[in-house]
Amino acid sequence: MAITLRQSDAGFEQRFAAFLTTKREVSADVNTTVRDIIARVRAEGDAALIDYTRRFDRADLTTLGIAISRQDIESAYTQADPATVEALKLARDRIHAHHARQMPKDDRYTDAIGVELGSRWTAVEAVGLYVPGGTASYPSSVLMNAVPARVAGVERLVIVVPASGGAVNPLVLVAADLAGVSEIYRVGGAQAVAALAYGTETIRPVAKIVGPGNAYVAAAKRQVFGTVGIDMIAGPSEVLVIADADNDPDWIAADLLAQAEHDVSAQSILMTDDAAFAAAVEQAVERQLKTLARSETAAASWRDFGAVILVDTIEAALPLADRIAAEHVELAIADAEGFLARLRNAGAVFLGRHTPEVIGDYVGGSNHVLPTARSARFSSGLSVLDFVKRTSILKLGSEQLRALGPAAIALAKAEGLDAHGRSVAVRLNM
Amino acid sequence: MAITLRQSDAGFEQRFAAFLTTKREVSADVNTTVRDIIARVRAEGDAALIDYTRRFDRADLTTLGIAISRQDIESAYTQADPATVEALKLARDRIHAHHARQMPKDDRYTDAIGVELGSRWTAVEAVGLYVPGGTASYPSSVLMNAVPARVAGVERLVIVVPASGGAVNPLVLVAADLAGVSEIYRVGGAQAVAALAYGTETIRPVAKIVGPGNAYVAAAKRQVFGTVGIDMIAGPSEVLVIADADNDPDWIAADLLAQAEHDVSAQSILMTDDAAFAAAVEQAVERQLKTLARSETAAASWRDFGAVILVDTIEAALPLADRIAAEHVELAIADAEGFLARLRNAGAVFLGRHTPEVIGDYVGGSNHVLPTARSARFSSGLSVLDFVKRTSILKLGSEQLRALGPAAIALAKAEGLDAHGRSVAVRLNM
Repeated sequence: MAITLRQSDAGFEQRFAAFLTTKREVSADVNTTVRDIIARVRAEGDAALIDYTRRFDRADLTTLGIAISRQDIESAYTQADPATVEALKLARDRIHAHHARQMPKDDRYTDAIGVELGSRWTAVEAVGLYVPGGTASYPSSVLMNAVPARVAGVERLVIVVPASGGAVNPLVLVAADLAGVSEIYRVGGAQAVAALAYGTETIRPVAKIVGPGNAYVAAAKRQVFGTVGIDMIAGPSEVLVIADADNDPDWIAADLLAQAEHDVSAQSILMTDDAAFAAAVEQAVERQLKTLARSETAAASWRDFGAVILVDTIEAALPLADRIAAEHVELAIADAEGFLARLRNAGAVFLGRHTPEVIGDYVGGSNHVLPTARSARFSSGLSVLDFVKRTSILKLGSEQLRALGPAAIALAKAEGLDAHGRSVAVRLNM
Repeated sequence: MAITLRQSDAGFEQRFAAFLTTKREVSADVNTTVRDIIARVRAEGDAALIDYTRRFDRADLTTLGIAISRQDIESAYTQADPATVEALKLARDRIHAHHARQMPKDDRYTDAIGVELGSRWTAVEAVGLYVPGGTASYPSSVLMNAVPARVAGVERLVIVVPASGGAVNPLVLVAADLAGVSEIYRVGGAQAVAALAYGTETIRPVAKIVGPGNAYVAAAKRQVFGTVGIDMIAGPSEVLVIADADNDPDWIAADLLAQAEHDVSAQSILMTDDAAFAAAVEQAVERQLKTLARSETAAASWRDFGAVILVDTIEAALPLADRIAAEHVELAIADAEGFLARLRNAGAVFLGRHTPEVIGDYVGGSNHVLPTARSARFSSGLSVLDFVKRTSILKLGSEQLRALGPAAIALAKAEGLDAHGRSVAVRLNM
């Protein structure tokens, strides 16, 4: 049973504030182990990868090979259900079309006094994408990370994926191939992150590492940050469904459970202005849980972190939603557009009764890598911008330097930076 | 004496590779101290700020007040040189004009099958700006951080600045006022970062913290990251000057020293195709060092981290410059535009012989907060984008759900996510 918070109750503010700061994840301290793994990969290269893979993934890379071959990819296609391959193609094309609109434009202009200024965007040269193994090995995530990188113009896109027991999910290989990635290595964990950051005999280093992973992968990404760039460290997923009574309780319950089945730390929140509707959704959740393949996970998530928030009016949900700043927000209400216009903090918003969040996970076209744990207050989902960087451009002639130089000299003097002032003055014969 | 590397020498590649990985900064491990400070500010609020400020900044906030008043700001204006105030206004206006062009545009469109997609940008609601005390208390940095936040539409912009011995640099207050910041607190160090992240009785929490600081500030920012957003952790500054023999050695020497005077860990690199010119620049550096106020700092930086790289041709400098990925690149060469067009990794580029990097520090209009330590390979300088975040928007009607739903169901099935599939299927009566 999820908790229920009633806005009309005395003490609601206090309970809501406590709810906001609930930690859903205990982060294991694996920093020392990870530090040792990284140091050893730096020192021993491929040999360390082979040894760690034997121990952690029970796979022998000396026979399998570190690199996945073209033949491995062809073989993956033969193992895949053709309908799934078609669905992946549809997803890829829709993700590509949406992300192509995100490419930032260069800007170069001359201002009123003749100073030339500019911003130029270039792709990160080489990017590594971590793909988890086991049940979290999602081909959809391969597309969500790889396609924007391709759109950005990343020249070298490398995938690392652990081969647990020797095997890699064939759909991961198909998704990689559909996204145009041909450089794939059978390594995972902190050792794969170390290989991407520092390079080995087989794996050349990259400039940035993206993609989800377990506590070891997250710790390794934090440790190599600076040497390479990293994306955000994603926490467990969450959904906030804001729904009025004009919804089918079964639809809303299914949406809450779709989030809950991800992980016992996932969070599903229903916010509604109708107590009877809330009760009907809760009953539907219990009913649907009985026939769910991952019912144990979903039930634990709903029990431990699920919440029903009864608001006085849908209007009153707005400031609460901004404070929750959820990764996913479904607006299954009459005036979804009006609500959206005034909502500030959300990773992604799904409008209306026919846009379950799951569409965004797969085939909507927008990215499913989104800010979790209230970080939508200050950060954005993955986009083409994560794979490009900007160079500022400045160009003065002697006339412009005469115009701006004295102010620069005055500020350098005020800041006690003598040589700064001289660097301008020497050109003005001052 | 800076080191000299000659591209024509045997062993150049090895020496250059080693040069690239030289660490210029030893990061002190202050994590435990910082953890304690943050915990105490969370527990005790203002009382902890008052106590830490008494101990670390030798200032009594019970008499001075935690907040800086309007009267303090007015008084700062009377202490400031009017020419400096005018220079700050020019800088502010030019920074504003340039950054206004960076504001990303919302995008909302309907695709061929009627799915509505969109990206909407909103400002981060509240941002804290850390301003260091002492000699690193630069009014120009206040403008470089505060103006883009204002352009982005940040509603609440808060400055924290330590009052060493009770005093705050009056030009910092003037710059804050010119940038439209009126909420300023006399606190610094890890305690100020903690106050911004978690709030105290006097200081309401923010959603993001930006600005430079010492090892304690940097460690505190890392520790509160997640609870709030942070900007990049900047390392010591660096410049790469690529110059042919048609330059005045004194101009180039002044540019190298402008970088070197910042910090003993700063780095100035000259890359040229002319050994005689390089020698002339080195002589000019030694000559200019004699009359420099901060000659001790500049001399140490030039001695320990300065470098002269003799390239076979200016063309041959290109791949080396991309590997250095410098924060600042000056192109004092005949075909600066042609070189720029093929350069990939640089925080900011200064074109031609009349654009000393110092112009970009103050009045060029572009931002002087730029990626250091080779991080221009994967990251960008500070911009309006650092103060906004994007929400993805997706909207389907029943017809679009019928079109895309089956592919989503197929992928959910392939990923073993039962409830995901049901969330779509239940709406399609499947």
